[in-house]
Amino acid sequence: MICYLLYSGGKDSTLAGIILKKLGYKVIAVNVTFGLYPYYKYAEESSKIAGFEFKTLNLGKEFLEKIVEKIIKEGKVSNALNIIHKTAIEEVIKRFNAKVIADGIRRDDKVPKLSESEIRSIEDRYDVELLSPLRGIGYKTLRRLVEKYLIIKEDYSDFLEKSDYEAEIRQYMKDKGIDIYKYFPKEHKQSRVIGLKII
Amino acid sequence: MICYLLYSGGKDSTLAGIILKKLGYKVIAVNVTFGLYPYYKYAEESSKIAGFEFKTLNLGKEFLEKIVEKIIKEGKVSNALNIIHKTAIEEVIKRFNAKVIADGIRRDDKVPKLSESEIRSIEDRYDVELLSPLRGIGYKTLRRLVEKYLIIKEDYSDFLEKSDYEAEIRQYMKDKGIDIYKYFPKEHKQSRVIGLKII
Repeated sequence: MICYLLYSGGKDSTLAGIILKKLGYKVIAVNVTFGLYPYYKYAEESSKIAGFEFKTLNLGKEFLEKIVEKIIKEGKVSNALNIIHKTAIEEVIKRFNAKVIADGIRRDDKVPKLSESEIRSIEDRYDVELLSPLRGIGYKTLRRLVEKYLIIKEDYSDFLEKSDYEAEIRQYMKDKGIDIYKYFPKEHKQSRVIGLKII
Repeated sequence: MICYLLYSGGKDSTLAGIILKKLGYKVIAVNVTFGLYPYYKYAEESSKIAGFEFKTLNLGKEFLEKIVEKIIKEGKVSNALNIIHKTAIEEVIKRFNAKVIADGIRRDDKVPKLSESEIRSIEDRYDVELLSPLRGIGYKTLRRLVEKYLIIKEDYSDFLEKSDYEAEIRQYMKDKGIDIYKYFPKEHKQSRVIGLKII
């Protein structure tokens, strides 16, 4: 069974993929891009290390512009990230004819996070299965599993080569001369998978 | 790493244990009893089949009586089942000095289900990790995984030899001459694991 995994190259989505592989799924890692900057390269590298197939999902510049407008209008990124996540799931279903779609959302994540009714609505409308293998796992357990399975590089968002939803948004806003720290936290530490310990 | 798994012998908690084993945990299945009827035998059999160690956790007759009082007073079982679940987690921590405790709660379960703040409160107060490996898995995915890994026997609660929280409660209430169908659904189908396909 093929599972399309929304993938950033970070520890959460990589660990989600490792669990899916252990359950017998063939994992295709999908990195969301907006087609402006080649940040997907970092996710591609990490996906190779983890033994996943890799694809990009280009949501386009127009979509990015709408997202940036929304962030500026609302003064925060949380709703925008949820919209990207939901759109990404729906586009993976439509473009790749995906039947099983997973993400790396953890128990303690605030955004992006779909509500249970949003999840069920997508499952029913498209006749697909959505999975979040880390949904019942807290930060302490996650830290332990990451230590067991992954070699990661951690740094603050500004300094880490990263392929998550935010990377291109931040770069685009910077290039437009927008002060991103009005909207994004400065001290947000992120991770990138650079090696596997066991698989 | 040892993980204590609240275990009924049904498909959900068995599948949770299989995922935990795949992640490298040594699984000790714990069946909750009230010490009145030997329903735990069925969970013990299933746990052997699944390759888990097995223990019982006797919450006692007095606790059962309070639970039954609550069910009758409230006219429903949902709050009572949540209290049993929470008490079971806390007693596993206290009696077995458990550091990692898991359950078979699924995404679509209504009860028993702890809130995220209840989970975090237990984790912080006792310095433990709580895990729900099926928390991000819906019924369609679960059905597929069950078909892949388990051989199960399914029947309505009244006819299935079962070791979940309800089994002893229902028996106790019946023996007291209480009409259990005022409180429990009649058509509740349950499962019991009687074989493994792969592990």
